[in-house]
Amino acid sequence: MMEIYLDNAATTKTDPEVMDLVTRVMTEDYGNAASLHKKGVDAERYAVKARQQIADTLKCAPKNIYFTSGGTESNNWAILSTAEAYVRSGKHLITTLVEHASVKNVMEALKNRGFEITYLPVDENGCVSVQSVREAVRPDTILVSVMAVNNEIGAREPVEEIGEMLHSKFPQVLFHVDAIQSYGKYRIYPERSHIDYMSVSAHKIHGPKGAGFLYVSDRVKLKPYIYGGGQQKGMRSGTENIPGEAGLGLASEIAYRHLDENNERLYQLKSRLREGLMALEGAFLNGQADGSSAPHILSCSFEGMRSEVLLHALEDRGIYVSSGSACSSSHPSQINTLSGMGLSKARQEGTIRFSFSKYTKEEEIEETLVALRDLLPLLRRFKRK
Amino acid sequence: MMEIYLDNAATTKTDPEVMDLVTRVMTEDYGNAASLHKKGVDAERYAVKARQQIADTLKCAPKNIYFTSGGTESNNWAILSTAEAYVRSGKHLITTLVEHASVKNVMEALKNRGFEITYLPVDENGCVSVQSVREAVRPDTILVSVMAVNNEIGAREPVEEIGEMLHSKFPQVLFHVDAIQSYGKYRIYPERSHIDYMSVSAHKIHGPKGAGFLYVSDRVKLKPYIYGGGQQKGMRSGTENIPGEAGLGLASEIAYRHLDENNERLYQLKSRLREGLMALEGAFLNGQADGSSAPHILSCSFEGMRSEVLLHALEDRGIYVSSGSACSSSHPSQINTLSGMGLSKARQEGTIRFSFSKYTKEEEIEETLVALRDLLPLLRRFKRK
Repeated sequence: MMEIYLDNAATTKTDPEVMDLVTRVMTEDYGNAASLHKKGVDAERYAVKARQQIADTLKCAPKNIYFTSGGTESNNWAILSTAEAYVRSGKHLITTLVEHASVKNVMEALKNRGFEITYLPVDENGCVSVQSVREAVRPDTILVSVMAVNNEIGAREPVEEIGEMLHSKFPQVLFHVDAIQSYGKYRIYPERSHIDYMSVSAHKIHGPKGAGFLYVSDRVKLKPYIYGGGQQKGMRSGTENIPGEAGLGLASEIAYRHLDENNERLYQLKSRLREGLMALEGAFLNGQADGSSAPHILSCSFEGMRSEVLLHALEDRGIYVSSGSACSSSHPSQINTLSGMGLSKARQEGTIRFSFSKYTKEEEIEETLVALRDLLPLLRRFKRK
Repeated sequence: MMEIYLDNAATTKTDPEVMDLVTRVMTEDYGNAASLHKKGVDAERYAVKARQQIADTLKCAPKNIYFTSGGTESNNWAILSTAEAYVRSGKHLITTLVEHASVKNVMEALKNRGFEITYLPVDENGCVSVQSVREAVRPDTILVSVMAVNNEIGAREPVEEIGEMLHSKFPQVLFHVDAIQSYGKYRIYPERSHIDYMSVSAHKIHGPKGAGFLYVSDRVKLKPYIYGGGQQKGMRSGTENIPGEAGLGLASEIAYRHLDENNERLYQLKSRLREGLMALEGAFLNGQADGSSAPHILSCSFEGMRSEVLLHALEDRGIYVSSGSACSSSHPSQINTLSGMGLSKARQEGTIRFSFSKYTKEEEIEETLVALRDLLPLLRRFKRK
């Protein structure tokens, strides 16, 4: 059976070029980057190159890039380091109601340690307003954390505008952007946008799992996340995962090399799926399901359906989608973008997220629409009995 | 030029079988283990299998295994979690002077947070005594952390005996073992030896970099290390690095499948190198360079030599060794096993670590000895001028 993988916001297939590089590093250039001999130097060279490749996409210096084990670690690090290093300046942090669990649950952990968290609401499209951020800042605010693209509905948050506002009104407040769903889809320049921390994950952009990075601006007092042999300026110790770092660097370069043509294709796919979904009875698109939201994510609620039922019916036809966010799908209580947008419980429970990649084909969208046209009446009839 | 890689305590070449598995997972079974559909279920299956493979080598239940990004993270997690979860029971921790930086620097970080650390001395062989541990325990001691095999000289620490002693005399004290250089060389059963936490790294046993695990006993109150989507029972969130986990599982299985024959070969190599070194003028073996220390590590000091000079001279002949521990070789101040053993500064500075793997050949040892016989007189003469 053909596989139609429409769950690329959960994870992506490794790019063959990246795969070749990872394989070569693992089998030939397997040295420990901390070793003084040639095999160590060769390994370190991959890390240097990867840092440069990433820095080029962000228009920043390589020294501002720290490799991590993934986006979740990056989010944890940015927030926990700020809480530790700036506790004397205040114990108030601001975020939104629609952040990924890797931000929200760190905030909740800080709450248990005596910090105060303001969760900003979003509008019917899942977007936070710059004004609400401005109004929430207090003298004891140390961090604002807002995602660039929402993982459940693809809503684009105004992070550039928030960065600009914070810079002009509250220059002492640090700004963290979870760019895990945005990186490789949008150009985002942390310095220009006054972003202090930015989190990215490799496996969302056809890179290897277990790799990611955290951009950290020059002004940040950073605390180590992992102590040990002093790797990465003593901030993130541990033998460097050179295959992962090299793979992430190359995946970053590839993503931005073809950004415009890839996005154009993704928007065509999204547009075709949107049209097809709008023609279905009882299908409601969530958020701004057009060019103003991310090119690779489309969220749709199906009236009278439970998303798991539809998900598994599609799965039987080889079509893989997500109900809410896969990163937390085993914990439905954490899914909150849809409720934050004001969706009814019934609508939330019938929501499917379709997400594309550069490997998604037009025919796959057509086949998915055919499957939905077949399945929805059947499943609804079955349910009524 | 032929490569003779004798730095396997720093990192090892990925096993081809492991490489094949990692490649397959990355290209075909690339799903997110948290996804509800088949590709998620398939991915999760690899994690389940890997946990079982590891548990089989430890004779423990799979539920006691948590995947991490590597040995350093495992060490950090065990120690920091204990400090956080048991702070009400006390603020005293015991370790040794010869631990790896990934233990020592976490202890130092805790010191800055008001914890008290006792660093136990070692004997001339680099070994800590069970009695010294017993005498150091206080009513407010919450953790003892001792490595199983020292990374610089291969000394085997009496962790089984320490576990037994703690269990019978001080059952309230938790016991952490850094088994990063021991796993895959010795059989170690945490339950039987009353070990509460055990850290392991994949890339030391021909597995992938960026992967490791922490064994955690049932009685431990564990705190999350990374917050997020709730993966790994909410203790270590983040999209699971399935290629890394699968590779680690298989590498573990392979290591123990051939343990006895591999060790026999390694001891033969070590014995041959030891004999050859003992025949050299001004060469002094460090620690118990025989069957009572680890099969894959041999440390030797060369009188009147600086280790970097010899390291690079060997490198020119394609022979890769380490001066001290590669994991911290860019921070020589952290190298302390040799000083802890009472070696003079001159002896310390002329120390080379040779470390083998299953891929090391007898001829490579012979060639290394030939190179040393050539180089040492030359380098010493050059130095005198």
